[in-house]
Amino acid sequence: MFAQKGILFILSGPSGVGKGTVRQRLFEQETHLKYSVSATTRNKRPGEEHGVDYFYKTREEFEEMIAQKQLLEYAQYVDNYYGTPKEYVEEQLEQGNDVFLEIEVQGAMQVKENFPKGVFIFLFPPSLNELKNRIVRRGTETDDLVRNRLQEAKKEISMMSEYDYVVVNDNVDHAVSKVQAIITSEHCKRERIETQYKKIMEDDPNARTIS
Amino acid sequence: MFAQKGILFILSGPSGVGKGTVRQRLFEQETHLKYSVSATTRNKRPGEEHGVDYFYKTREEFEEMIAQKQLLEYAQYVDNYYGTPKEYVEEQLEQGNDVFLEIEVQGAMQVKENFPKGVFIFLFPPSLNELKNRIVRRGTETDDLVRNRLQEAKKEISMMSEYDYVVVNDNVDHAVSKVQAIITSEHCKRERIETQYKKIMEDDPNARTIS
Repeated sequence: MFAQKGILFILSGPSGVGKGTVRQRLFEQETHLKYSVSATTRNKRPGEEHGVDYFYKTREEFEEMIAQKQLLEYAQYVDNYYGTPKEYVEEQLEQGNDVFLEIEVQGAMQVKENFPKGVFIFLFPPSLNELKNRIVRRGTETDDLVRNRLQEAKKEISMMSEYDYVVVNDNVDHAVSKVQAIITSEHCKRERIETQYKKIMEDDPNARTIS
Repeated sequence: MFAQKGILFILSGPSGVGKGTVRQRLFEQETHLKYSVSATTRNKRPGEEHGVDYFYKTREEFEEMIAQKQLLEYAQYVDNYYGTPKEYVEEQLEQGNDVFLEIEVQGAMQVKENFPKGVFIFLFPPSLNELKNRIVRRGTETDDLVRNRLQEAKKEISMMSEYDYVVVNDNVDHAVSKVQAIITSEHCKRERIETQYKKIMEDDPNARTIS
């Protein structure tokens, strides 16, 4: 057996594009992927578990993590902080687990700055019109809000240039199998494995195999 | 529908690694791939068809193609030339077809020089010992010949650095599904599709979709 390090995959894209659905379907099929567990200052709810649902932090602890650059990204919603602890991600990668992060475009850009060797996947709407339909279908938004969100989405789409891959979400199954293909092929990239493969060939060739 | 150009995929690796078997299995499953049809100076055999099995050329025609740099690679075996005509490959790519070339390491390096935007996949033996077994199993080789071929294989393995991907052929099905994943994910690469996707979003968003 040949132990390869894990890879951090970041799935992002404009709001309304269907990131959550793609991530959910993907996790139903890919049991080797690890969620990235977030840190938060919000209170633990009944049934939640520390280290599984979130890492629960006090405001002071969280702000210390920010100061120490221990977060790949963070944001404040209402009165609470939410963020991605670097240490948890790095531990998982070191153990050979792939980590999967599904996140808004703003957060993804922070991750890119703090962890450039992540693999960034942009989920793309089949068309602006379809994106509008999806936003409208959520039901609660007024016309003005829909217009604003669509403007926002256009801005987010222009961030595509920062990503490694673009996957069109014309159909959840198609999108999921493309993301799976990206995960598989990234593990075959020559620069990730070259040194170790060459070493194995130079070592006793009878004793070791790669898989 | 969104028409994307085809991609040239090159599968190579040391002799005995099982390139032919992987290519064959892949073509049984991936009907959208086009073989690259080679040019040759050898005589047409009964049942063969010009433009399907080979492009049949006279020695003078072939040497003219060499001089005009119309071949992605070529080699001479016994008294005949064999090579990959650039024009055929480019026509297929232009029509949106992926072209697949299975070829020895030497030839792959010529293709890399003449067509650097190809995607180069190196098929890797599970171990040197396994490679030796596969060479021996072919049956006809003497001990000296096996030793020579193994030496040659080690040299070819050192060419791995020139490739984009490395796929271990521990099992044909695994190797084939990794090559399929590479084909899928290459089509999702941001730099291949960005300009067209952005254009579609700027055009009338109601009229067009991507798939």
